Order: sequence, then structure tokens, then C-alpha cells
Amino acid sequence: MKIGHFITFEGGEGVGKSTQARLLADRLKVAGHVVVVTREPGGTPLAEKIRDLILQQRPKSPEAEFLMFAAARAEHLSAVIRPALEAGQTVICDRFIDSTRVYQGDVFGVERALILAVEQLVVAPTIPDLTIVLDLDPTVGLKRAAERGTLSRYDKARIEIHDDLRQGFLTIAQSEPDRCVIIDAARSVDVIAADVWTAVAARLVPACG
Amino acid sequence: MKIGHFITFEGGEGVGKSTQARLLADRLKVAGHVVVVTREPGGTPLAEKIRDLILQQRPKSPEAEFLMFAAARAEHLSAVIRPALEAGQTVICDRFIDSTRVYQGDVFGVERALILAVEQLVVAPTIPDLTIVLDLDPTVGLKRAAERGTLSRYDKARIEIHDDLRQGFLTIAQSEPDRCVIIDAARSVDVIAADVWTAVAARLVPACG
Repeated sequence: MKIGHFITFEGGEGVGKSTQARLLADRLKVAGHVVVVTREPGGTPLAEKIRDLILQQRPKSPEAEFLMFAAARAEHLSAVIRPALEAGQTVICDRFIDSTRVYQGDVFGVERALILAVEQLVVAPTIPDLTIVLDLDPTVGLKRAAERGTLSRYDKARIEIHDDLRQGFLTIAQSEPDRCVIIDAARSVDVIAADVWTAVAARLVPACG
Repeated sequence: MKIGHFITFEGGEGVGKSTQARLLADRLKVAGHVVVVTREPGGTPLAEKIRDLILQQRPKSPEAEFLMFAAARAEHLSAVIRPALEAGQTVICDRFIDSTRVYQGDVFGVERALILAVEQLVVAPTIPDLTIVLDLDPTVGLKRAAERGTLSRYDKARIEIHDDLRQGFLTIAQSEPDRCVIIDAARSVDVIAADVWTAVAARLVPACG
């Protein structure tokens, strides 16, 4: 039984997800919330090992890779996210179901029916209350990620793929306006953070008052 | 596109699955088949690492464990089973979908809808042509497994669980008689092997003639 709020940040590399997650957590703490900031893939010792295994020995089958990420998510939900929400805490997660839909689905071709079946049978009812899609031209985001040395194997793909990823996040946000908000991430950190706070306050007013 | 035959052995520990798989492979080779003998969980380097990870650091969530096994199966299908079947080879696998239904489903309580969704969206169309369920009183099977030192954490569970596992395999076999054959594994290795051969010859005649 979910009680706390569940907020996710989505978007390509270098859009500022982890920075904005931290700033939002700080502001929520000041407002009196108990906040858990976490990330995917990962978030538990087993899930981090699954993440490492995927990096060490990349699956030949996109379905195998998807199912490994799904296993990590099931463990993360069971061990971290659900207990925090049930305790009334606010959970902020850097990447969640939308990254799976866009990376594993749109880019690596895992069947949408499989992705949705796992969302319905493993993730539900723990669907985010609010998903903030940070939107940025991928040439800018990749330059930032390269400067901080965090380019992954995904980030080294052709630029067209990053355009597809950006479009994938925007399409999800447009098709689920009750859950998702698109925020222009080409601006300063403080201006973006102000927009994030406005979105959170507007959606989750009872707990933020 | 599957061309070769896909045969699986199922049943509890100590029923003789790997012995019978090997004897069947030998007989099929004499009859001119190219045969691949494999096992689950495992069968590829990544799948063996997933198996090891589950043993080292057991998931808290039964769904996570199920999805890790499912990932290993997706990789095994993609890297080993499907290429062999597509090349017209006969694949014999020690444990497959029925072990998942019985261990993860009946015993560990993973929702049947999730197990069936993954069967339909990941395993299909590579469903076994023939599944041989070796049936044995679990007190006998566990004694054999203990003598050879291969008791797993599952095998150390209470005996009632092993009775449930046995019943789970029998229920599947009875509900899918076109795919499954139940063979009494309380008899000698040679007598069981003769029954296995009869079942294979009856079902897969065109390739065994």
C-alpha cells in the first residue's frame, strides 16, 4: 500500500537528472519530508551487481538484457522503493520505467508487449506519481557528460540514436500528461530547479503544504 | 524458424534427468542426429554467471529471482537453443519452463500471469516438442542427490515442498498431454531409458526413422 510520493527524473545523459534530484530532495527535506534519493539501474547491492554484470558481459539477446534490468528493478522495488513509500517517505529515482521503454524498447527493439507486461505484473501498482522529463538537445547533453567523464556505451552511439531517445521521452510525456511534465533543461540549474519545484508543488500539494 | 527437435527433461532432484538426457543423446547420435545437450539454469557463460549471482546473493524478491532466471533463459535461447534448432539439430535440455512454473510459481509464489507472459513473449515459439517428466517419490530422489553431494538450497527444504514439486510436474504433464510424457523413475536406468526412447520415437518419428 503506497502512501508516500514517488517522483522520477527521466531524460538523456547530461540533462541534469541527478543534480535536479538532489536539489529537489533538499527542498523537500526543508519542507519536512523524509526523502530517499535512488537511481536505476541499481539501488540495491544485488541490482548493482546485475548492472556490473551487464557492463562486463553484455547479453547477446536484447530480451536477456531487458530481463536483467527488470530483475534489478523488482529487487529495488521490493527492498528500497516500496518500504520507503509504505513508511510515508518521498522517493526520488533517477531513471525508471520510461528509460526502459526508450532504451530497451525504442532503441534495442525489445517488444513493447513484453515491456508493458513486466510494468503491469512487476512494477504496478508502484507507478510514479510524477515523472519529470528533462529535455535537452543531445549534442549539449553529450558534451556535458563527456566533460565529466560519464559517457556510457549508450552515449557513444550515433547522434541519431540520441535524437530518437529524446523523441521517445517526449512522446511518453505527451501521451501521459497526468504523470509527466516536460521541463526545458537548456537553462540554468536554478531556473530548472524552480520549474521542478513548481511541478512538484502543483501535483503533490497536500504533502508539500 | 525451428527445424530440429527440442526435448526437455523435468522432475525433482535425483530422478535421473542428466543421466537420461545423456543416454538419449547417445542413442540419437547413433541414429544419425546431431545433438546438443544443455541445462538450465545456465547453458551460456552469461547464464552461468547469473546462476552464480543468484546462489551468492539470493534476491529478496521472488520476482527478481524469476526475472534473473528468465534473463538467463532468454540468453540461452538466443545463443544456444535457437541456433541449434535452426541448424536442424536436436536439443536436449535438463530443466526448462516446467521447472520455472513449479519452483518459482508453485513454491515461491511468483504470479502465474507473469510466468505465462514471459513464456509467451520470450520463450515462444521455442516451446519443447516433447517434455519427459521423470516421476519419483522425493524421499528416494533426495537420498540419491544427497549421496552424490548435489543437494541445492531447494533440496534442503521441507519434504512437503518436494511433494508439492512432484505434484506440480504431474499436474502440468496431465494438462499438456500432447507435449508431456510421465515416466516412472523408480526403476533401473536401462528400463527408464527404454521408455524414454519409446516416447521419443513415438513423438518424433520422422527424424528418428
